[in-house]
Amino acid sequence: MIVTLLTDFGASDYFVGAMKGAILAVNPLARIVDITHEIPAHDVQAGAFTLLAVYESFPPQTIHLAVVDPGVGSARRPLLIITREHLFIGPDNGLFSYVCEREAMPPRVYQLTNEKYFRPRVSATFHGRDIFAPIAGALSKGEPPAAFGELIDDQMRLAPLAPIHDAPGAWSATIIHIDRFGNCITNITRRELTEEQFAEGARLEIGGREINSFRKFYAEEAQWGAGKLFAIWGSAGFLEIAANRASAARLLGAARGQLVRLTKRKL
Amino acid sequence: MIVTLLTDFGASDYFVGAMKGAILAVNPLARIVDITHEIPAHDVQAGAFTLLAVYESFPPQTIHLAVVDPGVGSARRPLLIITREHLFIGPDNGLFSYVCEREAMPPRVYQLTNEKYFRPRVSATFHGRDIFAPIAGALSKGEPPAAFGELIDDQMRLAPLAPIHDAPGAWSATIIHIDRFGNCITNITRRELTEEQFAEGARLEIGGREINSFRKFYAEEAQWGAGKLFAIWGSAGFLEIAANRASAARLLGAARGQLVRLTKRKL
Amino acid sequence: MIVTLLTDFGASDYFVGAMKGAILAVNPLARIVDITHEIPAHDVQAGAFTLLAVYESFPPQTIHLAVVDPGVGSARRPLLIITREHLFIGPDNGLFSYVCEREAMPPRVYQLTNEKYFRPRVSATFHGRDIFAPIAGALSKGEPPAAFGELIDDQMRLAPLAPIHDAPGAWSATIIHIDRFGNCITNITRRELTEEQFAEGARLEIGGREINSFRKFYAEEAQWGAGKLFAIWGSAGFLEIAANRASAARLLGAARGQLVRLTKRKL
Repeated sequence: MIVTLLTDFGASDYFVGAMKGAILAVNPLARIVDITHEIPAHDVQAGAFTLLAVYESFPPQTIHLAVVDPGVGSARRPLLIITREHLFIGPDNGLFSYVCEREAMPPRVYQLTNEKYFRPRVSATFHGRDIFAPIAGALSKGEPPAAFGELIDDQMRLAPLAPIHDAPGAWSATIIHIDRFGNCITNITRRELTEEQFAEGARLEIGGREINSFRKFYAEEAQWGAGKLFAIWGSAGFLEIAANRASAARLLGAARGQLVRLTKRKL
Repeated sequence: MIVTLLTDFGASDYFVGAMKGAILAVNPLARIVDITHEIPAHDVQAGAFTLLAVYESFPPQTIHLAVVDPGVGSARRPLLIITREHLFIGPDNGLFSYVCEREAMPPRVYQLTNEKYFRPRVSATFHGRDIFAPIAGALSKGEPPAAFGELIDDQMRLAPLAPIHDAPGAWSATIIHIDRFGNCITNITRRELTEEQFAEGARLEIGGREINSFRKFYAEEAQWGAGKLFAIWGSAGFLEIAANRASAARLLGAARGQLVRLTKRKL
Repeated sequence: MIVTLLTDFGASDYFVGAMKGAILAVNPLARIVDITHEIPAHDVQAGAFTLLAVYESFPPQTIHLAVVDPGVGSARRPLLIITREHLFIGPDNGLFSYVCEREAMPPRVYQLTNEKYFRPRVSATFHGRDIFAPIAGALSKGEPPAAFGELIDDQMRLAPLAPIHDAPGAWSATIIHIDRFGNCITNITRRELTEEQFAEGARLEIGGREINSFRKFYAEEAQWGAGKLFAIWGSAGFLEIAANRASAARLLGAARGQLVRLTKRKL
């Protein structure tokens, strides 16, 4: 059984290794797959976005263990969330919010209370190793979800990911992620904007600059000078603002959370 | 059989990949688990601490392959160290020192001399790939430890990890690690300090500042302003100096190796 | 079956996780091994060097999935390259050039055209997930190479890696990689220079400085002061310029691509 890991633990500490050990101590045959450990420290929203972008690439019945957990040790609950095809383990702080938003069917949510499955001595600072990892190990061995705790229906939610439709024909969107290449991923999807609408005059503005071009792939029209900004559909289904052989984020001085304004012509 | 990897090779070079290949070339079924490759270059002590913090999380019979090896190619010996439940492969430079200190029973230590198990052409610069990895592969296939070389009893040791008890009721401790969140991990354990002693007036000082607060978890009393420093038991069993939603290391201008002074009231 | 991954995707984004998921979605039993994801963005030559340095460490029949792909979505072709012992999947942009140069027998090269093996909806920006990963998954399950497309013989090639023999007894070499320790790896091999020739007066110059010393291992003559530069055979078979307990790259102000001049005495 595959167990993926997504954390904000970075690559330099013992944290990730300790979690892997704690999974394998329960199920030596678990197949552990790193997604990333470079979620910015304590940034639940960034973790929620990365999970959303990646979970459907994995086969059904994959267990996704995600820990971005500034509230570790406090009263925030540990959860197991089961969607139609995937399982998620982690803290109740909104980390699985965007995944749950996308799923057509409401997921089942268990609060992890059965201490039998916890590490014998649970620290107050590292539930990744002491609670989440051993439960992922037990689940990957075939333990039934109901063994770990009771169903709940009041898990934490982040604000919805979608842009805010705040005027007729107008949306306030944001940059939700800046990738390694400097592409600025927005929360705009094909629900808010189509290429046809863009061609017919929909306006896309960020930091006082209008994006005038829409491309199918990054290297298109590579004869253009470097640095020309354009919009493009990214691989996670969101509109990206990218630049010709350059970092759009640097050209724009853009940061995550920055406003992107979308205005359509009256139809 | 699980083989963990801990090195100072970083993530950008071919070194880690080459070691993994060399393990799998001997045992294609070895289950390789990365602990970290971001030990600071040549920093044996940092490697020794991370191993200490993580090894007990893994199941018994795990093989821990660790390479922080500034003396590669010189006369420093390659070792296999066997504790009650774990196996360690790497250079004889103190890297396994803290692990051996913790173990109740003295480990068996083999010098790896049987060139039959080395890569056909051993380079003078990369024993990770040419000696340690193939031996980890062979060991993970069930080859007996004595096949690789002779027992020795004079392996290198770092200075003990514990604080120095240098005056009545007083200890000179140090920061042994600063984690990604800026938490400063000291070498103080529950042997030197208890929460009761702290409450009764034990003093903890670093860089001229006294730490006045002791917490059970990071997010406790989150209503405090950011930046308040406190002590906390970390997940590796050491006392940490942390800060409310902030990097204690940055607030303190602290560095690894820095003195932390512990003074208890006369009892 | 082992599938290695080498990309320029970095560790922070969802890209690597998505590729792993896409491999496992086709073959849940594939054994995925990370080589590195820190190839500098879009740097095909750096990716080609790292592959060259690492591929022979892996067992025969390993599938090496490599994606450094600035032309993703354009007309550049997706390839499967089969050498005597290894298999390579990735874009047709020279990434496998150095590997092909080293192999004695010309590899078989397939253009990946059979969309049956692609992800149902292929994005124009992420062929790593949508084309290369599913084909690696299918190949690792035993699908025959000819199932994926037709043989071609005009794949892209980088300029040869070897130094340019541009005058009698003289070569223009370059720094092809700078590793984490600051060692400067050149493209000089034992074909261009032997230790005997060096001892007999062959000259090695970089940035106006001559390298006068040749060592067998890094820590040799460690009694010297830090910072002394020397030449050494690196573990990938190339001549390195290194420094005594210091970064040669920093001491030299060296950068990748920089000229290294090799002149032999008349023989």
